Amino acid sequence: MNPDIVKERNNATFDVEKLTYILDGGPEKTIRRREIESLVFNDPDFKEKDPNFLSRSERYDQAVRKSAQMILKLREYGIADPDEIQQYKTMAKGNLHEAMGLHFAMFLPTLYSQCDPQQSRKWLPLAESFQVVGTYAQTELGHGTHLRGLETTATFDPATQEFVLNSPTISSIKWWPGGLGKTSNHAIVLAQLYTLGKCHGLHAFIVPVRDMSTHEPLPGIVVGDIGPKFGFSEVDNGFLKLENVRIPRENMLMKYAKVDPDGTYMKPPSAKLTYGTMVFIRSMIVGESARALAKSCTIAIRYSAVRHQSEIRQGEPEPQIIDYQTQQYKLLPLLAMAYAFTFVGQYMKQTYLRITGDINQGDFSELPELHALSAGLKAFTTWEANNAIEVCRMSCGGHGYSRSSALPDIYVEFTPTCTYEGENTVMMLQTARYLVKSYRQAKAGQQLSGIVSYLNETQDRRVQPQPVAARPTVVDINDLSSLVEVYKLRAATLVEMAAKNIQQELQRRKSQEDAWNNSCIDLVRASDAHCHYVVVKLFTDKLGEIGDTAIHSVLSNLALLYALHGITKNSGDFLMAGLLSVPQVLQMSLRIKELLSQLRLNAVALVDAFDIHDKKLNSVLGRYDGNVYEHMFEWARSSPLNTEEVHESFHKYLKPLRSKL
Amino acid sequence: MNPDIVKERNNATFDVEKLTYILDGGPEKTIRRREIESLVFNDPDFKEKDPNFLSRSERYDQAVRKSAQMILKLREYGIADPDEIQQYKTMAKGNLHEAMGLHFAMFLPTLYSQCDPQQSRKWLPLAESFQVVGTYAQTELGHGTHLRGLETTATFDPATQEFVLNSPTISSIKWWPGGLGKTSNHAIVLAQLYTLGKCHGLHAFIVPVRDMSTHEPLPGIVVGDIGPKFGFSEVDNGFLKLENVRIPRENMLMKYAKVDPDGTYMKPPSAKLTYGTMVFIRSMIVGESARALAKSCTIAIRYSAVRHQSEIRQGEPEPQIIDYQTQQYKLLPLLAMAYAFTFVGQYMKQTYLRITGDINQGDFSELPELHALSAGLKAFTTWEANNAIEVCRMSCGGHGYSRSSALPDIYVEFTPTCTYEGENTVMMLQTARYLVKSYRQAKAGQQLSGIVSYLNETQDRRVQPQPVAARPTVVDINDLSSLVEVYKLRAATLVEMAAKNIQQELQRRKSQEDAWNNSCIDLVRASDAHCHYVVVKLFTDKLGEIGDTAIHSVLSNLALLYALHGITKNSGDFLMAGLLSVPQVLQMSLRIKELLSQLRLNAVALVDAFDIHDKKLNSVLGRYDGNVYEHMFEWARSSPLNTEEVHESFHKYLKPLRSKL
Repeated sequence: MNPDIVKERNNATFDVEKLTYILDGGPEKTIRRREIESLVFNDPDFKEKDPNFLSRSERYDQAVRKSAQMILKLREYGIADPDEIQQYKTMAKGNLHEAMGLHFAMFLPTLYSQCDPQQSRKWLPLAESFQVVGTYAQTELGHGTHLRGLETTATFDPATQEFVLNSPTISSIKWWPGGLGKTSNHAIVLAQLYTLGKCHGLHAFIVPVRDMSTHEPLPGIVVGDIGPKFGFSEVDNGFLKLENVRIPRENMLMKYAKVDPDGTYMKPPSAKLTYGTMVFIRSMIVGESARALAKSCTIAIRYSAVRHQSEIRQGEPEPQIIDYQTQQYKLLPLLAMAYAFTFVGQYMKQTYLRITGDINQGDFSELPELHALSAGLKAFTTWEANNAIEVCRMSCGGHGYSRSSALPDIYVEFTPTCTYEGENTVMMLQTARYLVKSYRQAKAGQQLSGIVSYLNETQDRRVQPQPVAARPTVVDINDLSSLVEVYKLRAATLVEMAAKNIQQELQRRKSQEDAWNNSCIDLVRASDAHCHYVVVKLFTDKLGEIGDTAIHSVLSNLALLYALHGITKNSGDFLMAGLLSVPQVLQMSLRIKELLSQLRLNAVALVDAFDIHDKKLNSVLGRYDGNVYEHMFEWARSSPLNTEEVHESFHKYLKPLRSKL
Repeated sequence: MNPDIVKERNNATFDVEKLTYILDGGPEKTIRRREIESLVFNDPDFKEKDPNFLSRSERYDQAVRKSAQMILKLREYGIADPDEIQQYKTMAKGNLHEAMGLHFAMFLPTLYSQCDPQQSRKWLPLAESFQVVGTYAQTELGHGTHLRGLETTATFDPATQEFVLNSPTISSIKWWPGGLGKTSNHAIVLAQLYTLGKCHGLHAFIVPVRDMSTHEPLPGIVVGDIGPKFGFSEVDNGFLKLENVRIPRENMLMKYAKVDPDGTYMKPPSAKLTYGTMVFIRSMIVGESARALAKSCTIAIRYSAVRHQSEIRQGEPEPQIIDYQTQQYKLLPLLAMAYAFTFVGQYMKQTYLRITGDINQGDFSELPELHALSAGLKAFTTWEANNAIEVCRMSCGGHGYSRSSALPDIYVEFTPTCTYEGENTVMMLQTARYLVKSYRQAKAGQQLSGIVSYLNETQDRRVQPQPVAARPTVVDINDLSSLVEVYKLRAATLVEMAAKNIQQELQRRKSQEDAWNNSCIDLVRASDAHCHYVVVKLFTDKLGEIGDTAIHSVLSNLALLYALHGITKNSGDFLMAGLLSVPQVLQMSLRIKELLSQLRLNAVALVDAFDIHDKKLNSVLGRYDGNVYEHMFEWARSSPLNTEEVHESFHKYLKPLRSKL
């Protein structure tokens, strides 16, 4: 064990194990998680080559092997709880993704939720026994987030009782679905349904794409891998071109919408029914942001504790780089963010489960708010975490650039969350739509409830840009509830500004749509402020649940750092709204420095509490034991370019070059 | 040609070709550049496999082949001008790096500048004929930017007239030098020189690492590749462990410092002599930032012109995504930044050449300012461009994540500039040191000249945080010189604040060093503001040189967008310093929207003017003809995972899985 990191752990002011219990939701949860994780790291079948040393095809091969292995082992162990399956898989996957992920994440859930009873009897046993391996083919080369624009067609032919599927243009080729390229033999294809000459919009169809026994593509199917990406090398994201592919009428998922044998179309009873999965996935992505950031902080902070460099005082030994104020300023606000997002992720999961309960009892009343909240928070947390991961990487100097640090992998596997399941700017605008609607309702005298209830207040007070310090401010910069209030008022101000901007555009005789488009900068800003408020509020709320004094103290400092740092980074907003005075902002900068030096003492302990096993972290820089350099050297020596002392290119090009000159 | 992109080009308000001449420095320069570029893209020898389809070893192999080929062709064509060589190589390399880059960028230049005449006679012919292929081994596993901390030793043994080189610790292993792993047979090794029992600090030694005929590592040499990285797959960044390696006394580079046969050490006449190369490389990196960003903007803006998605007005065709205000707000400020950095890059190059001229005549007076400026601008432009490239990538939706977009390659090849040649935070602090020193000189009554002369003024006026709008402001938000003034005053304020912060820390009985460390957040912020001012100023200055009215008009709008966007993003600084009032900042936000819709018309023309050949851009999304989707499909189909319809993993894992369940 590296002595520096031991020293850090000895200096911690709180019990790390107890904080881990809080993060897991109780000691019994922690124990069970560790039990499950040990099933992976004690299993010799999961010994494998570092994927960074393999070709794309080898990586895919190794990932398929692992997918198959996980299926068998999970059944063998009888692990069936979704959280536990997740824990097991996360440990086995490390920082990378699962080859067959979409089969579990989209194909099976769609079958469960959209098959009628007869379809369930046919398809579920096939899919659960992996005779059928499937994916979910929605996105097309020319269309992503905007679903109405999808071009694939499914035309019902009553004569043969079949749907005929086509990709009528290049831009209509299905593109991106995970597992579509090589792994799947079936796909749920989203297509515009045509029957009796009429289009009824997007519906889902089960389309066989490969022969179940030979795995060869079926007639009319052009399918393959879309080629290398920034990351996701384990996954065969695929393309699918459909050329008059005929499937039986029964392959349309018919739990809600139906097409009768004579071609009569019956629409689903409610549009809201399909909307839940999307909300679920977006809510879960908030937790993903927290986990990716927790990993990155663990690596950067542990490394900052063992790395010595340069000098603060001449002639003295080189300090740990975490002693530099600039390093603290880079990393500790991100550590605070990792905690904030962890708690927000927990909240989103709980809220989703609660509202799903309501929905199952026919109560949809909270769904619109959850929809708006999950869209905005998905965008807010993924953007923030995305930038933060790169700051962590660069805070490790050159070594963060080595694949051995794991930071490049963490980044490339995480960054698509900013785009998939709803492009972030579009997500922010969905939330903005809800905020503006709520604002207008409040203005019309309606009493709002829930998280937007603060918009009621804007009607009572004149919130508008005004000279800073013109209004007496009663903000206590050390009091979190006071800061939550300030964040709330900032959000209210920006929502009001965006709404007024739309009004002004309308007065300039712009259409509703153009007025909206011409206000989008303000709308995104309002959404961002709203989400920021929610995060600060939820972090603060969480503190109320924490009994342990030492932990409460350090988490309060983290929450304070998160809140103050967010204000100083956006000080213009707060000053312009007259919510803070200049001296207050300056005072905050000083307070931030104090918090940095206080939190620095607990920095290693705070990342230890995330309890991310070395096998899952897979980073030489982030190792629990801090023995960085010897393992970096060992890793490098085992890399494939070193299998031979002399690379063949010497004989092929370098030596001949001499004689040609 | 895609009709949308044709329409964009037809709508441009200026002559693209003329703007290209301005960027190149004259029509004759443009013509010559195109001539050189055509030598590459018309040459069948440069047809090659997409590196993204190859394994690491194959990529390296292909890159060595290309390096060797470029050497032969450049000699054949008689191209010897450094700029022209650069143009030729840039075209051949596309977005990637050169395997033998360090031989040209560091090994040869160091020999040229630090060999004594005898050494020149021996080594230059060997290195110029590639008998000797070399690299520059400075960075160690445990030490990067802080050179004094390097641990490698070179101890003179008078008995044998040799230096004995050693890597005394794991952390002293040389790490990162490009071309060290496999390509080079020699390295210039930076080591602590010991002679007659005394250490004389870092000196440079020529160390043979591989046998010149067999290419096998020599005795005592442990050398290899450091393993896969985020990018730079073409380059064999290497490690080197020295175990009692003996080299003749003549292998120490002795132009300046010397060790006599009896072990007597003679120090170099001036420390400043070694300092020029560093300044040169940092100055050149500013131009790199501009080029990487220009490429990214070209891709994102062309794609935004051909991509249609979603709807602004219901029922109407899907608009080009560049018509969305949010898309314009993402990309057009970055386009403005690309132009700004291009002009700053030109300025840095010219200034370097001018000052080098002075230095050659013994006048070192401007070197400290150039040193400070190059450090700060290197950090400022690389950080800004680094973030901007990722914004460009994500503005392309999912397709930006495909390697076919080139944006992942551009990012991973560019991002190390934030770390190498001086870690950016350290660079910012170097500039801050100069700024604080200058501030103190001004305060002591000295009259400053050059780019920091504005610090004279802080002595005349009371610049300090004060309530916004307390002071009457006379800023014209449409007048660039007025905005330059505001940026200048912001910089002055922040330099003063940082300097005062150090004073306050000292009053709290902190040591000089601790006072400095406790002010680093403020110091980095001051440097950043200084650099931002310099960029806005140089962009504005450049406009004065442009005669063509149409081009002047569009570039003025770009400069205005750059300046106003920078203010609104940092509005807190300007408000707190009392430089702007709240209504002015709000007005700026409105003005930015107007500029976006004006510049949108010329967006494609403005990226066309960078004149980046498709072969160099290597992006399906950024193609000049806009025919994106068909080429994306074609690229995907040719990717290696599609060479066989059925991947072997089906037979190995998926089929057997069924029978095990």
